[in-house]
Amino acid sequence: MKIIGIDPGLRNMGWGVIAVDGPRLRHLANGIVHSSGDDLGPRLAALYRGLCAVIAEHGPDTAAVEQTFVNKDAVGTLKLGQARGIALLAPAEAGLEIGEYAPNAVKKTVVGVGHAAKEQIQHMVRFMLPGVTFAGPDAADALAVAICHAHHLQGRALCIKTSA
Amino acid sequence: MKIIGIDPGLRNMGWGVIAVDGPRLRHLANGIVHSSGDDLGPRLAALYRGLCAVIAEHGPDTAAVEQTFVNKDAVGTLKLGQARGIALLAPAEAGLEIGEYAPNAVKKTVVGVGHAAKEQIQHMVRFMLPGVTFAGPDAADALAVAICHAHHLQGRALCIKTSA
Repeated sequence: MKIIGIDPGLRNMGWGVIAVDGPRLRHLANGIVHSSGDDLGPRLAALYRGLCAVIAEHGPDTAAVEQTFVNKDAVGTLKLGQARGIALLAPAEAGLEIGEYAPNAVKKTVVGVGHAAKEQIQHMVRFMLPGVTFAGPDAADALAVAICHAHHLQGRALCIKTSA
Repeated sequence: MKIIGIDPGLRNMGWGVIAVDGPRLRHLANGIVHSSGDDLGPRLAALYRGLCAVIAEHGPDTAAVEQTFVNKDAVGTLKLGQARGIALLAPAEAGLEIGEYAPNAVKKTVVGVGHAAKEQIQHMVRFMLPGVTFAGPDAADALAVAICHAHHLQGRALCIKTSA
């Protein structure tokens, strides 16, 4: 099974694709879709096309998106929301189920505690996906979300097996 | 020239299309694209497809989107942002230029003051677009945004003419 993780952002939309084979995880690709400029419409269109192209190229079976919050101000939160809408739309349009995970849920899965530093997360992602090179911090975050989704799905599969 | 106005919302995405011929405005259509359910991805996809269908059917030349803010809490602002991302993406993907207007700019154009009540706006929209029937309050707001865009574009055209 292939999982795409997405870390939403208007300037940098991080993505990472991993393969899951039972308990084994494998890195397939990661990257960042950038957008810049003053006009929001074309920026969102660039992010949407970029993400759709990534999904078409790597053919993930399921998607996971980070439930990021910017609490500093309403303008920042609205901007992030707009980027997040695109991050959810692209996999939904591809017919993928989408898992949403809060940042502390991702940290707890990857590092073991909910208040880990960025460096700690990147360290653990490197450990879990040997040989990975990050296209940037947002791509590393996206891989962490994908790993979190893999663990969640395996937990669900285990539950189904146990109850059957 | 045809203008589509969009009032973004996750549950109710209002839209309205008007025709502009010099100083004359004419109502063409208005409606609401609804979305409901727990899964955000399919909801955003439904809004996106609905808006794309409206744009394909009515073929507007330009678009206007209200710069709404929900300041009550970050969760509400993030939700609105996600819907707003879709409201901007659909016309951008159709190659339309998009005007963005703050609610008080819309009110000032339509009613003459920046702090008008909803009923006042709807009254003036009815006056400016004789015979119009609103699909709902969000569709009336969308028509108001379209009217605001028409006035803005005429102002710009007037400036060009004056300087020529």
